[in-house]
Amino acid sequence: MTGRFIALEGGEGVGKSTQGRLLADALRARGLDVVTTREPGGTTGAEAIRSMLLSTEGDGWSPRAEALLFAAARADHVDKLIRPAMAGGAWVICDRFVDSSRAYQGGGGGLSDADVLDLHRIGSEGLLPDLTVLLAVRPEVSAERLALRDGGQADRIGGRGSDYHARVAAAFRAFAQAEPKRFALIDAEGSPDEVHGRVMAALAERYL
Amino acid sequence: MTGRFIALEGGEGVGKSTQGRLLADALRARGLDVVTTREPGGTTGAEAIRSMLLSTEGDGWSPRAEALLFAAARADHVDKLIRPAMAGGAWVICDRFVDSSRAYQGGGGGLSDADVLDLHRIGSEGLLPDLTVLLAVRPEVSAERLALRDGGQADRIGGRGSDYHARVAAAFRAFAQAEPKRFALIDAEGSPDEVHGRVMAALAERYL
Repeated sequence: MTGRFIALEGGEGVGKSTQGRLLADALRARGLDVVTTREPGGTTGAEAIRSMLLSTEGDGWSPRAEALLFAAARADHVDKLIRPAMAGGAWVICDRFVDSSRAYQGGGGGLSDADVLDLHRIGSEGLLPDLTVLLAVRPEVSAERLALRDGGQADRIGGRGSDYHARVAAAFRAFAQAEPKRFALIDAEGSPDEVHGRVMAALAERYL
Repeated sequence: MTGRFIALEGGEGVGKSTQGRLLADALRARGLDVVTTREPGGTTGAEAIRSMLLSTEGDGWSPRAEALLFAAARADHVDKLIRPAMAGGAWVICDRFVDSSRAYQGGGGGLSDADVLDLHRIGSEGLLPDLTVLLAVRPEVSAERLALRDGGQADRIGGRGSDYHARVAAAFRAFAQAEPKRFALIDAEGSPDEVHGRVMAALAERYL
């Protein structure tokens, strides 16, 4: 049996990692083999690229170099972790995947969507999740949640201005509208359990 | 005045760094402003990527991830060093550039040339050298020179098998044949001074 690949997407502070944990627990409780992972990262090489990308030291990367580094980390992650886990029958739950590159380096950063997808084709043979759960909240709610996190410390990308993050959020919504079968757009306001209920309902519709 | 961009290319042990130094000295002696650099590397970010790429530790990178990392390092290098230096009127002499990616990740590693050039278009807006000096020796000469260097220690890529290096050398020659205006194919056997004389003759034909 081939596993499934579910990505959690959305801007900063929408609750992706919390929802990833709740989803993994719920699937494991149904007896499924679940692998949780995240991007950028998930393998030794990709985690090394992650620290280069998110460090607030040095003079930073151009949007083009940034897009190539994300694609390199993803290529390693897909090759060494995601494809083998799926081939072994696991459900892979990934915190961010290629739609984050499309939204952040494309929508937010100025690369074309075609270029970002070209990098994904070359690096990862264009692998897409079976289901992409897009968690969305109003901007003021996201700002509030972020301020509460890590004493307000943000990494290099999370720390960019509100205009950038507004473009990212708009890009995510546009992707979900363009591919309604692959995306489940989830209202991520309310308690973690309420949001988890909506995620499980979206999965049940499709698989369970 | 806009500067010029000269790349030195060729397999391992053909004498690229020696010829780069001799060329830089000769151009400086004519009063030109010369910047010497190398790939992968040349900027802080690109040198960090270089050590990830060439380290013989860890479990290595797939050809696809490797190609993306080289393109990311190159994007940073072009953006922060090569283009600014040329804009300031300098002659930039670079030890390896995109033709190395075409030969090593394309010809040697199994990516298509179109994919490698796509990565270069996305990362570096497809910048090509004004002149690419291809240093070529017979395989047995290259093997001999490599054995004498660093006590025979090779990095991750230099240490690959002779079949791989033969494909790389064939790819370089094919590029030079396809673009005779951009390439000067130089016989790199003989003493460093003899080879330098051939390089200067090729430049004189074009520029001096």
